[in-house]
Amino acid sequence: MRIDAALLERQLDELFAIGAEPGGGCYRPLYGSAWAAACDQVEQWMNAAGLATRRDAVGNMWGRIEAHGEPKRPLELLVVCEEEGSRFATNFWGSRAIIGAIGAREADTVTDAEGVTLSRAMRERGFNPENISSAARDDLGAFVELHIEQGAVLETERVPLAVVTTIAGGVHLEIVVTGRPDHAGTTPMDLRHDALAGAAAMIQAVQSIAAALGRPAVATVGKLRVEPGQINVVPDRVTFTVDLRHSDLGGRRALEERIRSLCGTIASERTLGIEIRTLHERPPVPMDGAIREVLERAATETGAVPAALVSGAGHDAQVLAARCAVGMLFVPSIGGRSHCPEEATDPKHLALGTRVLARALEILAY
Amino acid sequence: MRIDAALLERQLDELFAIGAEPGGGCYRPLYGSAWAAACDQVEQWMNAAGLATRRDAVGNMWGRIEAHGEPKRPLELLVVCEEEGSRFATNFWGSRAIIGAIGAREADTVTDAEGVTLSRAMRERGFNPENISSAARDDLGAFVELHIEQGAVLETERVPLAVVTTIAGGVHLEIVVTGRPDHAGTTPMDLRHDALAGAAAMIQAVQSIAAALGRPAVATVGKLRVEPGQINVVPDRVTFTVDLRHSDLGGRRALEERIRSLCGTIASERTLGIEIRTLHERPPVPMDGAIREVLERAATETGAVPAALVSGAGHDAQVLAARCAVGMLFVPSIGGRSHCPEEATDPKHLALGTRVLARALEILAY
Repeated sequence: MRIDAALLERQLDELFAIGAEPGGGCYRPLYGSAWAAACDQVEQWMNAAGLATRRDAVGNMWGRIEAHGEPKRPLELLVVCEEEGSRFATNFWGSRAIIGAIGAREADTVTDAEGVTLSRAMRERGFNPENISSAARDDLGAFVELHIEQGAVLETERVPLAVVTTIAGGVHLEIVVTGRPDHAGTTPMDLRHDALAGAAAMIQAVQSIAAALGRPAVATVGKLRVEPGQINVVPDRVTFTVDLRHSDLGGRRALEERIRSLCGTIASERTLGIEIRTLHERPPVPMDGAIREVLERAATETGAVPAALVSGAGHDAQVLAARCAVGMLFVPSIGGRSHCPEEATDPKHLALGTRVLARALEILAY
Repeated sequence: MRIDAALLERQLDELFAIGAEPGGGCYRPLYGSAWAAACDQVEQWMNAAGLATRRDAVGNMWGRIEAHGEPKRPLELLVVCEEEGSRFATNFWGSRAIIGAIGAREADTVTDAEGVTLSRAMRERGFNPENISSAARDDLGAFVELHIEQGAVLETERVPLAVVTTIAGGVHLEIVVTGRPDHAGTTPMDLRHDALAGAAAMIQAVQSIAAALGRPAVATVGKLRVEPGQINVVPDRVTFTVDLRHSDLGGRRALEERIRSLCGTIASERTLGIEIRTLHERPPVPMDGAIREVLERAATETGAVPAALVSGAGHDAQVLAARCAVGMLFVPSIGGRSHCPEEATDPKHLALGTRVLARALEILAY
């Protein structure tokens, strides 16, 4: 199948213009007017390409391909809504609707930053939250997702394409370190129980443990709060989060175990209190072996030698894996940047990824 | 002079009850009703003890001692207001008024947390901010201050009294570390520029340098802010403060120099940006040699062997040092605790400190 790289680039640029922000980047909050306009634009392109489109109860858009002769299996293009949870305090909204995993009261209780519930936003955009369960499908055979890497491995290793092996599992921990709030001027260093000095040693340990385990282990301290947070008081309480991920459940558990153990040791050496709480836990999701083989074959036929890569980020494929065989392709992110105005991918990598995806879908469906 | 330890303890307990907080501790914001009631109570005790009292333009209270025969030099008890700056965003308000160091517009521009200016609070309590300059005095010969240590050195070393040698000088630094905001799942450890991991190494360095220099060097990271502060994003910007103090100007400079140098090295090794800004700088204030001798003599005559101690905290004495000879006595803080509801001193140490102070004032005045 021929891919028109120039058309692809032009359409992506047109899509980017809908919801473009003055300072760079693009934001189309779920059920907002930019989101609706983008959906309409994509639907128009899908119709023009001969796809029969329909919207489901939450706003996912499906487009059945009716060209290219009668396939062995029907092929549909899926435009999934609100993977990120960038407007509402939830994520995988669209893909969870497809697997029937939206909670009974979820649409009425989850809100955006202005306090608008999902239900209200749906109604304002013409969707009926009563119908959410109708978005569920149990007839899916396979789901293949083409995505940007959102990291810098492919760019660093100069590889233009990857077949994802596993979407890493992860744990979010919250660690609270407690010490004593002493006067910063009057308390000699050797008499302190400084919660922040202890937390700093723990942050160093988190980083060292993940680095020593090597790829694909990653561990990140992204949030940290110091109390009382006064310039001249030794901190007595520090709360920080650890986001840790690994493609392998055993590897992830080893990572978590070492972090818990070393943080405990550091607290004990410094006579600090420590509490570690699991905020969130998600097992790794391996990609389907048969789909991976098809993706590798499609890549090879297209002239590319794909890398095998673990996805550190979450994707709709991990949700849909509950209902069907899933696979993913990655193309490089320039500078590894993602979730920021600088996010970009070389157009030739976009075209390559699209070619490999199209070939893989041909193999799967015909 | 005989000190009535039981009366002293009872009066301190009565004073504590004015402005006592439900959760423990005591709070008497400047110019508030608890502050005014406490001043009235102390004035009543002063009058009953034969002191002629007066309030100055900002609310400091002076009580001239007219008993015990004609002194060589007049003796006055001084109740200084708002040393801490616990209500208003300023400190040493009372002592700065005495040395004539209140800025021309300060009372109109400095506010409390509710936005009330010092001027308004003064007027509401019956003080005229136009008269602040009348609080200045140029006739002071010496100022002697008895204070709690606010640290744990005396308790740890089982010494009941100290003569302060110097009030430590200090510097407040603000350090901004900048990296790159990468995705916590997709960015391998070796490709990160993690501002918080860098800051954690710096916090460790700040602590190690001060500990290695030994007492009285202290360095504290009390405030820290992480950006963007999201659980799954590698932090790209961390801002933290360093409070560093030393009794000796050379020692303080060495401490600051080593901290600046090592933080710069850590940033450079990790390819992070760093900016270090001096927020505030204060030279050490040595106590007057003659006053120190008097305090040591008074202690010895009272049967105590005083320690010589550097004050890490700031005190009114450091401000009044601009106008007269100053000296300070410290008594132990239980557990080194200060600025918290647990702040307390053993009554026998309070009585000892008061005895030594009284004897020192006798020596100075008669």
